[in-house]
Amino acid sequence: MSQVTNETIFIDRETIISETDHTSLRLWLRMLASTTLIENCVRKRLRIDFDITLPRFDLMAQLARHPEGLRMGEISQRMMVSGGNITGITDQLEKEGLVERVTLPDDRRVWKVRLTVKGNETFQEMAAEHENWIADWMSGLTGEEQHTLYILLGKVKRSVQERHTGE
Amino acid sequence: MSQVTNETIFIDRETIISETDHTSLRLWLRMLASTTLIENCVRKRLRIDFDITLPRFDLMAQLARHPEGLRMGEISQRMMVSGGNITGITDQLEKEGLVERVTLPDDRRVWKVRLTVKGNETFQEMAAEHENWIADWMSGLTGEEQHTLYILLGKVKRSVQERHTGE
Repeated sequence: MSQVTNETIFIDRETIISETDHTSLRLWLRMLASTTLIENCVRKRLRIDFDITLPRFDLMAQLARHPEGLRMGEISQRMMVSGGNITGITDQLEKEGLVERVTLPDDRRVWKVRLTVKGNETFQEMAAEHENWIADWMSGLTGEEQHTLYILLGKVKRSVQERHTGE
Repeated sequence: MSQVTNETIFIDRETIISETDHTSLRLWLRMLASTTLIENCVRKRLRIDFDITLPRFDLMAQLARHPEGLRMGEISQRMMVSGGNITGITDQLEKEGLVERVTLPDDRRVWKVRLTVKGNETFQEMAAEHENWIADWMSGLTGEEQHTLYILLGKVKRSVQERHTGE
């Protein structure tokens, strides 16, 4: 992972784009810059308010959406941020009683990880705050602007998926 | 880093959002999902076409924009992707003759890293291809849509910066 400190959070990474770069590239670099900015803000707030890392929060978020539990490989695939050792984080969360490993009734060699009741409560509290931060930070945009952005980013996803898979 | 394999690139990470999430949060998760999607596509193409990792490409990109060279701390701050050990990557690039360490005339205890002529040529070739990929993948959006998206993401950046720094 690149080193992220409080001091570096607000460097505008997009300033490194040279004048000659073209529209699509500029757009992509702005997507990357704005996403990185918000990710770093979330990382900072999680540390200050909950003393938790972003990969750890992300892992609990995946489990919260799958109460039946997830296998380790499924967790890896679903993680939205990089920087975490899935097994190490899981071990740590288990030690703290926030997740548990359970075996499947039909195949006891296979096990899944799921949130404990305590883990779910802890996560829900953080998730509510997380949603408040995002709503606050985005409040410089009107609801309509946010909606337009949402629709256009959906178009980006479809465009990339259609074109990249064809290769 | 979370494990990224060819098979996981096209999982639509946004599908994990539950129906009850609110507008801003949905928007943020879509920003994260679309950025991650493109990042993984770039990662894959760099590996296939140039046998190079994304952090390594990113490091060379930072140096290409600063022909005078950058100190190690400056490189760390400017990296746009995570997942790389800056010192390790620099050592490797130096061994291959793509970057060089130079001392400052006014303070020989301080050194910077910069691209060699060979390093710059190698990077320019990759950068041209990289720009073509992005233009192609984004081509499902009209120029006007891309422009709107660019403007709105600029608003997001300003909104987040204004609100987060105040805390």
